[in-house]
This record gives sequence, structure tokens and C-alpha cells, in this order.
Amino acid sequence: MLLDIWEILGTFVFCLSGALAARERAMDWFGMFVLAFLTGAGGGMIRSVLIGDVPPQFLKDPRIFGLATAGTLAALAGAAWWKKVHRVVSLFDAIGLGLFTVTGIRISQAHGLPWWSSLALGVITATFGGLLRDVLRNQIPLILRREIYATASIIGGLALLGMDLLGWPEGVVVGVTTALIVTIRLLAIRYAVHQSKG
Amino acid sequence: MLLDIWEILGTFVFCLSGALAARERAMDWFGMFVLAFLTGAGGGMIRSVLIGDVPPQFLKDPRIFGLATAGTLAALAGAAWWKKVHRVVSLFDAIGLGLFTVTGIRISQAHGLPWWSSLALGVITATFGGLLRDVLRNQIPLILRREIYATASIIGGLALLGMDLLGWPEGVVVGVTTALIVTIRLLAIRYAVHQSKG
Amino acid sequence: MLLDIWEILGTFVFCLSGALAARERAMDWFGMFVLAFLTGAGGGMIRSVLIGDVPPQFLKDPRIFGLATAGTLAALAGAAWWKKVHRVVSLFDAIGLGLFTVTGIRISQAHGLPWWSSLALGVITATFGGLLRDVLRNQIPLILRREIYATASIIGGLALLGMDLLGWPEGVVVGVTTALIVTIRLLAIRYAVHQSKG
Repeated sequence: MLLDIWEILGTFVFCLSGALAARERAMDWFGMFVLAFLTGAGGGMIRSVLIGDVPPQFLKDPRIFGLATAGTLAALAGAAWWKKVHRVVSLFDAIGLGLFTVTGIRISQAHGLPWWSSLALGVITATFGGLLRDVLRNQIPLILRREIYATASIIGGLALLGMDLLGWPEGVVVGVTTALIVTIRLLAIRYAVHQSKG
Repeated sequence: MLLDIWEILGTFVFCLSGALAARERAMDWFGMFVLAFLTGAGGGMIRSVLIGDVPPQFLKDPRIFGLATAGTLAALAGAAWWKKVHRVVSLFDAIGLGLFTVTGIRISQAHGLPWWSSLALGVITATFGGLLRDVLRNQIPLILRREIYATASIIGGLALLGMDLLGWPEGVVVGVTTALIVTIRLLAIRYAVHQSKG
Repeated sequence: MLLDIWEILGTFVFCLSGALAARERAMDWFGMFVLAFLTGAGGGMIRSVLIGDVPPQFLKDPRIFGLATAGTLAALAGAAWWKKVHRVVSLFDAIGLGLFTVTGIRISQAHGLPWWSSLALGVITATFGGLLRDVLRNQIPLILRREIYATASIIGGLALLGMDLLGWPEGVVVGVTTALIVTIRLLAIRYAVHQSKG
């Protein structure tokens, strides 16, 4: 997983959301760090364990610990401030969702998995960090309830697999997939689209 | 894990119970699918990860995704209808409990584990999918409270190990074990046997 | 992991705390056993899975099952009695915290991991069993909220790594680290030190 500038910003925002979610529940600095860390790295950790790609990235690359620390400090510095810039935060969160979906699928394919389980692992990579965060907050995970969050990841992943079939170049595939997920996610926020409750 | 007709029916009912449990908690279709999937495949997933048998079956065999999808659709189609046929559902649920116990023990033994940890992994295979389902529903897992569910799996697993010692043929061992677990489970439902609360 | 007398006492007290915590929530004997087991062995299990050291110790060494059974029976025999001897229980719990931190770090280093991820895995080994216990009790994990528990493990782990750098002999390093963690933990209980809520 190449942690380029976008992936770093996306991971940081995931970590920040975990730390803010912990602070809301009156956790101490350790709880904030653990939730920051799991929100940012938990999805990739589950993928790594499932495909036998251990130890996972976070035990080999200290930057992920750095980002979880930064997210914790940022949440301690000012939860109120982050609410003011919620549009920027939502944008980077959506970028993280898109990039994590792509890297999850690509790493799974590189381990020889078929398209449908690679897609599943892409969605897990992108969304199960937030699931762990909510379990530790003692809440029903948000992604299981009504956010059009997993859906954006699934649609983007299917588009990626379709562009693969057409033989499009990697840069285009990654760019279009991420842009598509970001667009769906931001439109959903803009128009407050929730899914029906089944 | 040979997904023969009984195992398919048992897995389907596990998935259905997960999807119905998700629907009760007002989850969306994604939440229903995730809970259907984890209830059906979560126990086997935990076993696979613990013994290093990765990637787990569900990433290699698309039928498990199909059964989770079918369970979700069945739950969407009519929760009320499934309550009417609860006797049939309970029967297949008990069959799933029995078969999962057997396959969990057999796969663990094939990985060279001793009888006591194979038994533990058989019980985990059969019951920890429901444990994950309840954690994600934000409830204390039912199997930890008062259902004589794990107990049926443990007694059946001990019987299997005893028949192994006696050298009985595989077909008889599997048949008797499953029948024993199904019988205990259905008797427990029939007479509303709960365990004391410790 | 050499289960010498101190480690056995520490693990037993971890198991006991799990069984008592389960009993408070009206779980049956199976729930008490599962929580006893996960509190005692859950942290090491997570470490084993993350570094690919599978099957984990508890599937190879039946003594851990024995300790979980003993913890369950002890909790059934008398929750009231254990409250009377809470000072002894707290002492062995602190010893367990110290020894689990040390063994977690040493095993991770033996698998070639760098100091910072070994430290993280030492803290996980010592504290994430309690985290699993609280998730199954449907509570926000205590270690994420206000107990100066993880902090004692982290400070001890850092001291261990510092003594390694100085080239101190293993016996001294293990003894000083454990004594330091026990001291911090008992002082925190004595003076009811909680961390600020962030």
C-alpha cells in the first residue's frame, strides 16, 4: 500500500473520525488513540488476517501509528474546530473510502483471489475500520444502518472490475473509481440520501 | 467443507436468522447482508484464522455469498412468514448446529490439533457466527446467556470423539453426532430448557 | 510463553475477572467460561493471529483451558469471597499485566518485528483480553475509558526496551519491568488515579 499524499490525508481523516468518536464517549487518550488507529487501519488489518498477509502493514510501517497519534492530537486540540470544516473533512473521508476500496481490491487480486472476493475485501478494507470503531463505542455500526457508505464502495469496486475487463490503464481505473466513490458519497451527504430500512 | 444439501439448508437458515436479526434492528440491506453472512460463515472464519487455514472458505467458494444473499432476500420478503414456519426453521438451524460442529472438529483434526482444541474449534465453528451477529446488534450474545445451544454442540462433539475412539465408521459417527445435537436442541426448545444463570 | 507460577497466577486472576464479569451480567456457565477464557487468553490470541504465529498457544497448551475452567468454578463458588480478598486479586492482576506485556514484546521481537510494533503487541497482549471481555458484556471497554491500565503497560514496555538498549541481563529486565508495571498499577488503585477524559 503506497501511502501517497491522498492516502495519507484519507487515513488521517479516518483516524480523526475515530478519535472524535472516542472523545464523544468520554474515553481517555488511550481510548482515543485505539479508536483512531482502528478506524484508520482496522479494515486493512482484517483483510490482511483473512488472506494470510501477516504481519499487517501497520506493524511494519510506523507512519500509520504516526497518523493515529496525529488524529488523536487533532481531536484533543479542538472537536469544535473540526465541525466547522466538516466539508473538507467529508471530502477527505470520501477520498479515503475510494482509495481504500481500490487498494483492498488490488492487494486481494495480487494474492490470487477471484473478482467477487476481491470486491468483498475492498469493501471490508474501506468500511470495517468504522465498524470496529462503533463496536468499541458500544453502538450498532453506522455502516450497517443507513449511511450510503458501503454502497458507494461497492459501486466503485464494480466499476473498477468493469474497467479492468475493458483493459483500461491502471491510472485511469484508479482515478475514475476513486472519483466515482467520492462523487456518490458527497452527493449522498448533500442530498441526505439514506437507504430504506429494509 | 462439503456443502451438501443439509449443510446448504443449515447455512441458509443461519444466514436467514442473521438477516432477520438485522431487520429487527432497523438495519439497511447492507447490514442485513453482513449479519446474514457473519451468522452463516463467521464461526468457520474464526476457525480458519486461528488454525492458519487462510483464505477462509467463504473467499474461495461463492456459494456462501449466494446463501447470504438468499437469506437477506428471504428476510426482506417476509419476516412474518418465517415466524409461521418456525418449527421448520428451528429444525434446519439445529441441523446446521450439528453439521458445523462435526466439520469444525474434523477440519481441526486434519490440521493436527489435539482432541480438546478440535472440540473447542467445533463449538466455535457452530456457535461464534451467532456471537458476532449479536455483538454487531449491540447485544450480549445469546449463546453466552441462557440458550442450551453451546451445550448441545459440546455434548455432540464429545460423543463424536468417543465414537472415534471406538473406531466406528465415519458415516455413522457423523450421523449419530448430528442426530444427537439436533435432538438435544429440539428437546430444549420443546421443553423451554434454559440453563441456570450461574 | 513459559507458564511458570507467576504467569499461572496472573492468568488465573485474568480468567477469574472474566468469569466474575460474566456472572454480573447473568450469563450461564458457558458465558462465564468464554469470558474467563477470552480475558485470560484473548490478548495473546490477537497477537498470535496478527503475527502469523498460529495456531495460538491456547490451542496447543491445555493448561489455559484448565485455568479458564478454574476461574469459572472459582467465580461460581463465591463472588462475594473474591471481593473480600480484592487486594490479593489486584496484586496478581497487576503481575499478570506486567508479565503479559513482557512476553508479548519478547515474542514479537523473536518474530523480527521492530521495537515500536513489539511494544504495541505487548500492550495488546496485556490489555485486549479485557477489551474482548467488555465487548461481549456489551460495554465500552474499561481500558478505553479511565483506568490507568494501558498506561502502566506502555511505561513498563518502554522501560524494557530502554534496558535492552543498555544491554542489561534478561532476568533483571523482566524483573524490573514487571515490578514497575505492578507498582504503577497498585499506586493507581491506591490513590484512585484516573486519567483525564481528554
